Amino acid sequence: MSGRQYLQIPGPTNVPDRVIRAMAVPMINHRGPEFARLVQDCITGLKAVLATQGDVLFFPASGSGGLEATVVNTLSPGDKILSVSQGVFSERFAKIAAAHGVQVERIEVGWGKAVDPEEICSRLRSDAARSIKAVSLPQTETTTGVLNDIRRVGLGIKETGHPALLFVDAVSALGMVEIRPDEWGVDVVIAASQKGLMLPPGLAILAIGPRAWKAAETSRMPRWYWDWKQMKKAIDAGGSAYTPPTGILFGLREALAILQEEGLANAFVRHDRLARATRAALTGMGLSVLPSESDASPTLTAVNIPPGIEWKALSKLLREKYRVVLGGGLGKLEGKVFRIGHMGSVYEPEILAVIGCVEMALAEFGVDIRLGDGLKAAQRSFLEPYES
Amino acid sequence: MSGRQYLQIPGPTNVPDRVIRAMAVPMINHRGPEFARLVQDCITGLKAVLATQGDVLFFPASGSGGLEATVVNTLSPGDKILSVSQGVFSERFAKIAAAHGVQVERIEVGWGKAVDPEEICSRLRSDAARSIKAVSLPQTETTTGVLNDIRRVGLGIKETGHPALLFVDAVSALGMVEIRPDEWGVDVVIAASQKGLMLPPGLAILAIGPRAWKAAETSRMPRWYWDWKQMKKAIDAGGSAYTPPTGILFGLREALAILQEEGLANAFVRHDRLARATRAALTGMGLSVLPSESDASPTLTAVNIPPGIEWKALSKLLREKYRVVLGGGLGKLEGKVFRIGHMGSVYEPEILAVIGCVEMALAEFGVDIRLGDGLKAAQRSFLEPYES
Amino acid sequence: MSGRQYLQIPGPTNVPDRVIRAMAVPMINHRGPEFARLVQDCITGLKAVLATQGDVLFFPASGSGGLEATVVNTLSPGDKILSVSQGVFSERFAKIAAAHGVQVERIEVGWGKAVDPEEICSRLRSDAARSIKAVSLPQTETTTGVLNDIRRVGLGIKETGHPALLFVDAVSALGMVEIRPDEWGVDVVIAASQKGLMLPPGLAILAIGPRAWKAAETSRMPRWYWDWKQMKKAIDAGGSAYTPPTGILFGLREALAILQEEGLANAFVRHDRLARATRAALTGMGLSVLPSESDASPTLTAVNIPPGIEWKALSKLLREKYRVVLGGGLGKLEGKVFRIGHMGSVYEPEILAVIGCVEMALAEFGVDIRLGDGLKAAQRSFLEPYES
Amino acid sequence: MSGRQYLQIPGPTNVPDRVIRAMAVPMINHRGPEFARLVQDCITGLKAVLATQGDVLFFPASGSGGLEATVVNTLSPGDKILSVSQGVFSERFAKIAAAHGVQVERIEVGWGKAVDPEEICSRLRSDAARSIKAVSLPQTETTTGVLNDIRRVGLGIKETGHPALLFVDAVSALGMVEIRPDEWGVDVVIAASQKGLMLPPGLAILAIGPRAWKAAETSRMPRWYWDWKQMKKAIDAGGSAYTPPTGILFGLREALAILQEEGLANAFVRHDRLARATRAALTGMGLSVLPSESDASPTLTAVNIPPGIEWKALSKLLREKYRVVLGGGLGKLEGKVFRIGHMGSVYEPEILAVIGCVEMALAEFGVDIRLGDGLKAAQRSFLEPYES
Repeated sequence: MSGRQYLQIPGPTNVPDRVIRAMAVPMINHRGPEFARLVQDCITGLKAVLATQGDVLFFPASGSGGLEATVVNTLSPGDKILSVSQGVFSERFAKIAAAHGVQVERIEVGWGKAVDPEEICSRLRSDAARSIKAVSLPQTETTTGVLNDIRRVGLGIKETGHPALLFVDAVSALGMVEIRPDEWGVDVVIAASQKGLMLPPGLAILAIGPRAWKAAETSRMPRWYWDWKQMKKAIDAGGSAYTPPTGILFGLREALAILQEEGLANAFVRHDRLARATRAALTGMGLSVLPSESDASPTLTAVNIPPGIEWKALSKLLREKYRVVLGGGLGKLEGKVFRIGHMGSVYEPEILAVIGCVEMALAEFGVDIRLGDGLKAAQRSFLEPYES
Repeated sequence: MSGRQYLQIPGPTNVPDRVIRAMAVPMINHRGPEFARLVQDCITGLKAVLATQGDVLFFPASGSGGLEATVVNTLSPGDKILSVSQGVFSERFAKIAAAHGVQVERIEVGWGKAVDPEEICSRLRSDAARSIKAVSLPQTETTTGVLNDIRRVGLGIKETGHPALLFVDAVSALGMVEIRPDEWGVDVVIAASQKGLMLPPGLAILAIGPRAWKAAETSRMPRWYWDWKQMKKAIDAGGSAYTPPTGILFGLREALAILQEEGLANAFVRHDRLARATRAALTGMGLSVLPSESDASPTLTAVNIPPGIEWKALSKLLREKYRVVLGGGLGKLEGKVFRIGHMGSVYEPEILAVIGCVEMALAEFGVDIRLGDGLKAAQRSFLEPYES
Repeated sequence: MSGRQYLQIPGPTNVPDRVIRAMAVPMINHRGPEFARLVQDCITGLKAVLATQGDVLFFPASGSGGLEATVVNTLSPGDKILSVSQGVFSERFAKIAAAHGVQVERIEVGWGKAVDPEEICSRLRSDAARSIKAVSLPQTETTTGVLNDIRRVGLGIKETGHPALLFVDAVSALGMVEIRPDEWGVDVVIAASQKGLMLPPGLAILAIGPRAWKAAETSRMPRWYWDWKQMKKAIDAGGSAYTPPTGILFGLREALAILQEEGLANAFVRHDRLARATRAALTGMGLSVLPSESDASPTLTAVNIPPGIEWKALSKLLREKYRVVLGGGLGKLEGKVFRIGHMGSVYEPEILAVIGCVEMALAEFGVDIRLGDGLKAAQRSFLEPYES
Repeated sequence: MSGRQYLQIPGPTNVPDRVIRAMAVPMINHRGPEFARLVQDCITGLKAVLATQGDVLFFPASGSGGLEATVVNTLSPGDKILSVSQGVFSERFAKIAAAHGVQVERIEVGWGKAVDPEEICSRLRSDAARSIKAVSLPQTETTTGVLNDIRRVGLGIKETGHPALLFVDAVSALGMVEIRPDEWGVDVVIAASQKGLMLPPGLAILAIGPRAWKAAETSRMPRWYWDWKQMKKAIDAGGSAYTPPTGILFGLREALAILQEEGLANAFVRHDRLARATRAALTGMGLSVLPSESDASPTLTAVNIPPGIEWKALSKLLREKYRVVLGGGLGKLEGKVFRIGHMGSVYEPEILAVIGCVEMALAEFGVDIRLGDGLKAAQRSFLEPYES
């Protein structure tokens, strides 16, 4: 097979050819001056994307490593956290915390709904004993394509006066949806390389604010690999606490340059436009989107699978005949939804290609679909003037 | 700009990432054993694609170099040829021949029409003096997207008993449309790397039959670089008469493997299907295709530009907003048609992406177009059972 | 700067161009069939290199992550281990264990000496209470270029009848020095991608034997990311417990193919020959090697810096004038030794190039050196018949 | 085989990894704005390297194509030229000219000697009838590693007052040895991509001065592909007269950037130093260099093969055991000399590696050689202060 693959899963995303080339380089000494420049360029660029004056650290790890790092640096066994649970990845944070002896109080949100910021605040207000040490939630829940309103959550918590830390999993959002941790009161942002940053997986990224650093001083969790302090010291000196994933850092520098060329604000608008067109197309062809329009994320869309259609067969047809690769449902949504990633290096042509192939594949499976209706709806959406 | 480009011009075509990697290799000694194997693999693979037992040679040159090589190896100053003239590239052969002192008798075919094989045969039949040394025509005229029926031309000439050689420019056809020189009586097939072979430009390829070799013995044209005999001797010995374009040969080996994996017959069907869907889409959206359905080539489509639309502005919008790159009109068709290449590594998703963006761009220019109609027509075409 | 770099540090090592190309590929879905094949190929190949029938797992992490994973899966807080301490990396294991509440009893070996297997055994014999849960040591200590005799250690421990587990850090040895965990009684082998496997950093690799799995059942360390059981389940199913470093896995498959083509036994001999020639060259030019000939590792050589020479200046000259990059001393050896890596994709020409440039650089710094003497010694060593 | 190859033939040369990456890009439309910028960048950069205000053209061809282009654009059948013949490549120019009906008067110089500029001048002075239309010679004859003094030739011809044009084949010199056509009276410089420009083969480059353009107006050679006027018109308009080798042009832009970063004058010195060290090494190990020290080129060195040694066997050993690839003898020097290219992206370490392996290989063949003597001589040469 030699044709282009349309990898429209919710991550990893397409790595632009510029980034592939930036990584296809000879290795360098991670204790030399060239590496120090590379680290500095990456950290500077990440701070811009993360809109923070705080510290940015990276670890050779997947995004889940970033979640574990957050738990073991800020909490102590027996601590309690309030964890929004609305899909596999928000629940993952809760599981990691529990695995390290943290008590987890969950806000169970129906899978496919955004959390109501007020619900978080009201829980905190009723925590008179201030026993909740932290609140955790994702900006985008990758299982459902839901977007939580982190700004309202963050400012709302501030208003309650409750001292709980706020941890945001921005893995499926960074570089694609605005986040302003310093202004909104987010203490730790956790991200990873393989989504909006258009890189292969292998790098966890954390933005850490002063309150989180303070918590790290008193945390009694055992840690070495994930230790923030040790890594910060090394990164500040232009190095890494242990062998860094140099290849991905070379790619990161290029990806950050690409994002800067487009302009971060433009990237946010682009993702929103692509998402709107995708949802318009899906409803236009008679399918239904899992979250409501107001709860939907600009980075991926979960679609209800029409009755009688088996995802395995549908995805095989899409992949083998049209080389379109979409994501299946996870956890309790397996077989019930499929997910289209419109993340990273994606533009109008890819959306049209994917929607058009989904229409054809559904028609081949006998779904009563009017060919072209979804496409037309996407085109109309693209041609509408943009209002945020 | 980091997104994927949709380079849908009639060549160069998209180079598959496998081929890009196959060329991104250290140079080798072109006088060593590794190069000899490379040459042998390439020649063997090319013979299969060219369906010939004759000789296959390559030159570091563009396809036009292959045309010149054909002229200077088979003809002598003062010779007469019969040249089908139906666009810039068929006319180029005539010009090259004339530049070398050959008398050119043209069959002027309206731009956008295929040549009637009978017209060639009748000219030959009326050439009682046997003064016509050769007939030249393209399999696909890249200016207009017309496909000439080489089989009928070749077999027809045989039937006339006229000894004229038959030269076919298959630059925009090889690997995408069937050609069987040995069976059809084609004496020289000229091709190049950058179209159906999915490579960068820089390699001219020739299939040379026994009658052409015979003509080379008596040709009195001065030549050195293009000399077939010298190059054949070198290639047979696993080398090249002068420094060969090793990088492209590495890519060629991989491209030939890709073609073999798909199956040549399947590649022919694929190109035909893509072309049909493209034409269906264009007429479906209310545009008109330059050649008639029966004259149209499976490898590119020339479209009449709607009145009032300036190609320069349209192509700029397509390129800069949607990263879709199409070909403009050439020669007297400049500003009158644009051309969509569906050549090489192209599949359904690219056609849908390109058609969808063309629809949007035309709508943005105020053309009265029903969004989605072209796309729907393409989808229907793709879903139809295939009959050749 | 465009010239070739001679990256002869003790890792990361040169990534062969074949491996660079194997990684310069579009991303794939890590939940699809192509990924499952990739994982299977990698695990099969790693088992051959690791000479084990046990389980092989990988984690998106540096090698240090593999050390931490070993600690948290096999031990419990309060457990005691016996840790050979003979450099920065063997000491790192001790530190990680201590950070997780493990009591560490050290065998302090002078930096630059191999551990005496008998010393380990005698400690175990005298541990009547069987309080030592595990023994840890590196196969090659990257700080000093010392090679420990893992076979004697493993078989020796078996003979004592002591039930302690044996953990071997083979980061600077795997693929270059023989290790046979199943035969020698090694329970966990920890390795990483960036040394003998000729890959960029970012992948920790573990071979886990049945006794280690048994220990994992009773370990009371909190863990999620490093949890072996969860990762084994995922890998066995052709996936990964969380987003895997797909790019490195693509490279790993190619690197394993390269190792198999050479033959693992041949790779061991090659590293030994390169190391002998390097040491012969260094002593030939009047320098002294840190470990004794019998303690020296085939993968890197630590050299005592001649009096009066500052490493920083010497390494700058080597790097900027000759593009030769060597490793400096670490920990208490900083400024006292430098280290030459002869690991991975390295052959005779690189050794000659590096030795020759070191001679010139030392001469430029006024060291009384007879140019060419080191080179001559290396050449002689290369031409000697090999006896293991 | 995965190790680095030492491709030290006199072209193609090592392509730096930066250049490989610059070429590993998606194709672009050669009729669009991006290509126009690429052409302009390349032409501007080439004019700097060629030190000319005249025109620079490129053709998709090997360097030999550039020779043929020169013949057919400036001469007419029956014209007479004076051609220095001192090896395969200078003789090639004579052959190409003769193939096109040009009378060739040769200055036969012993293979391995530089031409005496005075000999050329005296021939011209005695040509009272001004029947000699042009003088041709190489700057470096790649067969023998001889450097002709183009400055003296050019200025000498000027002084004679003879109107003959001067054609210089700088294929094995451009970017490595100074050439100043405008000042020295060189009318056409012919070069190619695969030597000092560190690119794969496939691009012929010509610098054309006003007197050559004037000759082109009256030349009666038939031509189309090689027609300078047509190509100049296309290049001036940001295009190409026919499909250009876009991939190599992308690489050329990067290679020119590399040359500019080093500084052209520095590149000249570097090549001279490498050549001196190579010759010192060869004589140091008891071999003899074909040309005398004063006639030797800075870009390659031809070495007399010691009696009793068969080149085929020696080159096989060097290639297969040490991955060092050297050039054999050509034409009447086959089996008598071998050639070491020190062209393009080559530095001290490569010279040491190659010399060291040659010493070992010769020793293995029983040549009475003192290991290390050549290396020592090279090192001493490198450490000497440079005097031009």
